[in-house]
Amino acid sequence: MEKKNSVYIGTSLDGYIADSDGKIDFLDTFTFPEGEDMGYYAFMDRIDALVMGRVTFETVLGFNVPWPYQKPVYVLSNTLEQLPADYEDKAHLIKGPLKEVLANIHKQGHSRLYIDGGSTIQSFLKEDLIDEMIITTIPVLVGGGHPLFGEVNQTLIFECANTQRFADKVVQNRFLRIK
Amino acid sequence: MEKKNSVYIGTSLDGYIADSDGKIDFLDTFTFPEGEDMGYYAFMDRIDALVMGRVTFETVLGFNVPWPYQKPVYVLSNTLEQLPADYEDKAHLIKGPLKEVLANIHKQGHSRLYIDGGSTIQSFLKEDLIDEMIITTIPVLVGGGHPLFGEVNQTLIFECANTQRFADKVVQNRFLRIK
Repeated sequence: MEKKNSVYIGTSLDGYIADSDGKIDFLDTFTFPEGEDMGYYAFMDRIDALVMGRVTFETVLGFNVPWPYQKPVYVLSNTLEQLPADYEDKAHLIKGPLKEVLANIHKQGHSRLYIDGGSTIQSFLKEDLIDEMIITTIPVLVGGGHPLFGEVNQTLIFECANTQRFADKVVQNRFLRIK
Repeated sequence: MEKKNSVYIGTSLDGYIADSDGKIDFLDTFTFPEGEDMGYYAFMDRIDALVMGRVTFETVLGFNVPWPYQKPVYVLSNTLEQLPADYEDKAHLIKGPLKEVLANIHKQGHSRLYIDGGSTIQSFLKEDLIDEMIITTIPVLVGGGHPLFGEVNQTLIFECANTQRFADKVVQNRFLRIK
């Protein structure tokens, strides 16, 4: 079965996924027509599971909304001992080197993965483990914060496979790793 | 006459205009059909003059190619005393606070300006003096270097007015400042 690691994320025009206070208000700069999901549900339909870091997991819990995922969630953490009891049937704690982590997830029958969270994405990119990135650029300059991208161990070449605007304001580009 | 400050620049997917050695080799990652200028000449046709910093000016001189500009060039520098004699009819040294600099350039009848060079663009953005940015994203991650964007004094909101791919690899987005 095809193995694929995908990113679906929004950033500011200057490449931040959260501002210097950790806030993501800039994602709501523009309003969109009712029901416009910018391809999110179609993307979710074609993944088997999510992989996110502890910080992203705790951020989602902090939203105080019903658990938003229909697919299994793997929470990467080398520090957490266990997940909150309420989430034991929804999320799985997983630790270790990324390639081992991936092998374990694949063994569960989950091949097409949504990789989420800033430091998780950066860790995957450092090991050249990202195949696809769907990046929605909210065209605002916030000036600083938590960047989507960090250091890499080698130049990684992608191609822009699609580009699409939403509400005449926002642009979403889909990049595929070329090897 | 309409006054407009525009940027036309290429960056890596992680937002760098030069890598950590100051090199821009990544701009040549992909080859394009003969004659594909990615809108550069159409852009040059609709500007009256260029404004660039000393570093960009010296970089252009270092290319050892014939002087590439048909339009007047203003070189912003608070340290240079004069430009090399060979360039006296091609480029004009200009110094002082940006708003005064702009007023002086406008007095020469040059209203539609191409603002070029990393630190010059960042200075203009800090004073919210950029109206349009045409950014060609070369989808490679270089991991570090000279970023296009820096700190801003306030969140600046743009809209994506156009998006276009070239050679199925590269994407060019045009952003307009919304006020």
